[in-house]
Amino acid sequence: MQAQESLGQQQTHYLQVVSPPDVFVLESGATLSPVTVAYEAYGEPNAGRDNAVLILHALTGSAHAAGRSGPEDRQPGWWDPLIGPGRAFDTNRYWVICSNILGSCYGTTGPASINPATGRPYAMTFPVVTVRDMVRLQRLFLEQLGVQRLLCVAGGSLGGMQALEWLVNFSDWLDAALVIACPAQLSAQGIAFNLVQRLAIMQDPAWQGGDYYPGPGPERGLALARMIGTITYKSDESWRFKFGRAFGEADPDGYYRFGSRFEVENYLHYQGRKLVQRFDANSYLYLTKAMDLHDIGRGYGSWQEALSGVESKVLVMGISSDILYPPYQQKEIVHALRRQGKEARYAELKSPFGHDAFLIEFGKMTPIIRSFLDEVERSRR
Amino acid sequence: MQAQESLGQQQTHYLQVVSPPDVFVLESGATLSPVTVAYEAYGEPNAGRDNAVLILHALTGSAHAAGRSGPEDRQPGWWDPLIGPGRAFDTNRYWVICSNILGSCYGTTGPASINPATGRPYAMTFPVVTVRDMVRLQRLFLEQLGVQRLLCVAGGSLGGMQALEWLVNFSDWLDAALVIACPAQLSAQGIAFNLVQRLAIMQDPAWQGGDYYPGPGPERGLALARMIGTITYKSDESWRFKFGRAFGEADPDGYYRFGSRFEVENYLHYQGRKLVQRFDANSYLYLTKAMDLHDIGRGYGSWQEALSGVESKVLVMGISSDILYPPYQQKEIVHALRRQGKEARYAELKSPFGHDAFLIEFGKMTPIIRSFLDEVERSRR
Repeated sequence: MQAQESLGQQQTHYLQVVSPPDVFVLESGATLSPVTVAYEAYGEPNAGRDNAVLILHALTGSAHAAGRSGPEDRQPGWWDPLIGPGRAFDTNRYWVICSNILGSCYGTTGPASINPATGRPYAMTFPVVTVRDMVRLQRLFLEQLGVQRLLCVAGGSLGGMQALEWLVNFSDWLDAALVIACPAQLSAQGIAFNLVQRLAIMQDPAWQGGDYYPGPGPERGLALARMIGTITYKSDESWRFKFGRAFGEADPDGYYRFGSRFEVENYLHYQGRKLVQRFDANSYLYLTKAMDLHDIGRGYGSWQEALSGVESKVLVMGISSDILYPPYQQKEIVHALRRQGKEARYAELKSPFGHDAFLIEFGKMTPIIRSFLDEVERSRR
Repeated sequence: MQAQESLGQQQTHYLQVVSPPDVFVLESGATLSPVTVAYEAYGEPNAGRDNAVLILHALTGSAHAAGRSGPEDRQPGWWDPLIGPGRAFDTNRYWVICSNILGSCYGTTGPASINPATGRPYAMTFPVVTVRDMVRLQRLFLEQLGVQRLLCVAGGSLGGMQALEWLVNFSDWLDAALVIACPAQLSAQGIAFNLVQRLAIMQDPAWQGGDYYPGPGPERGLALARMIGTITYKSDESWRFKFGRAFGEADPDGYYRFGSRFEVENYLHYQGRKLVQRFDANSYLYLTKAMDLHDIGRGYGSWQEALSGVESKVLVMGISSDILYPPYQQKEIVHALRRQGKEARYAELKSPFGHDAFLIEFGKMTPIIRSFLDEVERSRR
C-alpha cells in the first residue's frame, strides 16, 4: 500500500479558450464568444507529456476535484480521496486536470455569464449545449494548455457521458477511458426525472423566466429539484439503512401534525438547502437538458455504431444499486464495444449507496482504477 | 370461460355515517362530524349476507370502481375489467362494494368538505387521517349498510395498505384479504417520493396555504406532483418500450431548443393536466401524508406482531417491475404471516408496467383472483 497524502491547498485557474472575433460553434449551430474554462491541475507533465489524465465532473460538480480551495474550505474536492500522491489517480505519476463544464456556474461560461452583446447575464438566452459540446471545448482547452494527448479520461454520471463522447469523437487522442454509471444515451426514465426537476425550478415564481440575476433566484424550486434528484441518487436500501422510518422531531405529539417530518424528510430538505447556497438554477436547467440530449449515436446510425472508431482501452463501471442509470446500461456499452473487437472491460461496484456510490465508495474504486491505469501504461510501453 | 359482461351504468350513493352530535374519533384524537361516505355497490347480498366484497381504492381513485357513471362517461370505473358478471369479482356471486376513502375528494369527507364550525372548506384545518382511520370508517359505513361480515377485502397500493389494516384491526370480520403492491409500513424512499410531491403542490403560490377554494387551486403544482408520481408508477422498461427517446415535436429543428420535448415529456405533461381536472390538491396532500404514516405496527411491538391476530386467508400480490413498493415488501408480509402459522400465499404479477400493473394487467390478475375467491368460498363451506 502506497502512502496516501492529500494534495493540500489548490487553486482554480481560468483560461479564455475562445476570444472574439473567434467563436465556439455548438452542435446546434449557435455560437459563443468569448468562452472561458475554469480548471485545476494536480501533479506535473512528464518529459514525454504523455501522463495527462482528464477528470470529468457530474451535474453539480466543479473543477475543484481534489485538495482544499483555502484554509476555510471545510470539504476537499469532490474526488479528493481518489486524487493525490499514492492515490488512484497518483499525482506522483499523472498530470491530473479537471475543468468545469460548459454551461455550469463554477467559472466556465454558462447561463450566468455575461452576454457581451447585452452586458447582462445570458440567462435563458444561453444556447442549448450538449455533452458533445462540453467535450469539444475540453479538447480545445487542453490543446491551449499544452496537452497533446491524454493517458485517460475518467468520470461518473454526467462525467461518464463526457468520457463516452471523448471515445466517440477523440479516441485517437486517448489511451484509455474510465466510464462510470452512465448510459450511452439517456433513457426515457432519465429524461422524465430531469423534466420534473426542471419544472420544479421553472414553476417557482422567483425564477422569473430565468432573469433573476443578481438576486438569489428560485431557491425553493432549485431545492425541490435537488431533493428529487437526491432520491434518484440513492437506493431504497440506503434510505432504509440510513433513516428507515425514524421520526424527525423531538415532540412525539407532532406525529399527527400535517407538517411533521420523518428524518428522511429533514435530510432531503437539508440537501436542497445546501445546493441552493452553491449552484445556479439556470445552469441546473441547461445541464439537465444536455443530459436529456445525451446520445452518443447522434450523427451515427446508432449508438453502437458511434463506438466503431474507438481505439482506446475502456473500463466501464456500473453500480449494483444504481436506480438512475442501472448496470444493464453500462454492460450494454461493454457488449457493444466487444462485439466490435474493442478492448473493453466491465467492473461492478457492489454497493448499497445507489448512483452516488461513485462519490462514496473510494476504497472499492481505488484498486480497480489503479490496476486499470497500470495496465494502460504497461500496454503503451 | 365465463361470459364477461360490463355492469353498465352505475351510480354513486352517499351515506352520512356520522351525524352530530356523534363524532368520528381519529387515531390522532381529533374528531370529525358529520362524516359522509360515497360508495357504489354492484351485485346483491345473498340470503346469508355473507357474499360481500369490499374493494379498496388507491391514491386518486374513487368509489366508482366499475361500470359507467353515465352515458357521457368515456372511461369505465378503475377496476371495471375485474368487476362484473363472470369477471374476477363476479357480481353474479358477490355483493361488491367500493367506498371513497376518508380525506379524498370524491364524496367522502375530506379537506374540500365544509367544516360545520366555519361554514367554509376545512382546507388545511382538516385533521391528519391515517390508513387505519380510513378502514375504521369503512367498517362503520358497512355496518350501517347492513353488512355483517366480508368475504374479502381487496386493493392495490394505498388500497393494499387498507387491506392490511383490515387484517390487523378486523380480521374476525373477514374471510380473506387480497393485498396488492404495498408495504407493511411505508419505506423511507416512499416517504421521500411523497414529500417532493407535496412540496410541488405547496410551493405553488396558487396553493395559498390550502385556502384556494372555490378557485382552481395549485394547478401547476398538482400537475407536477402527478408527474413525479407517474414516474414512480412506471418502470424503466415500460418507459423504454413506450417512448424510448422518441422526439415529441414535428419540427426537427426544435431539437436544440431549450423548450423542446421528448415524447415521454409530452406524456407526463398530459398525465399532470388530466389529474388537475379531476382531483383536489389538498386531498393529495392529506392522502400522501396518510401513506407516510402507514405502518401496521403502530400500537404493536412491530409490524410483524401486528399480524398476530390474523384469522383470514391472505393472498399478497407483488409486481415484478414495481420500483415504488418492490416485491420484497410483499414477500416479507407473507413470510411474517407464515412464520406465525397463518394462511398466506404470495403471487407475483410478471409485468413490465411497474406499480401501475395492478390497474393494467387484468388478464393476468383475473385467474389468480378468481381461484383465490373460489378457494375462500370452498374452505368456508
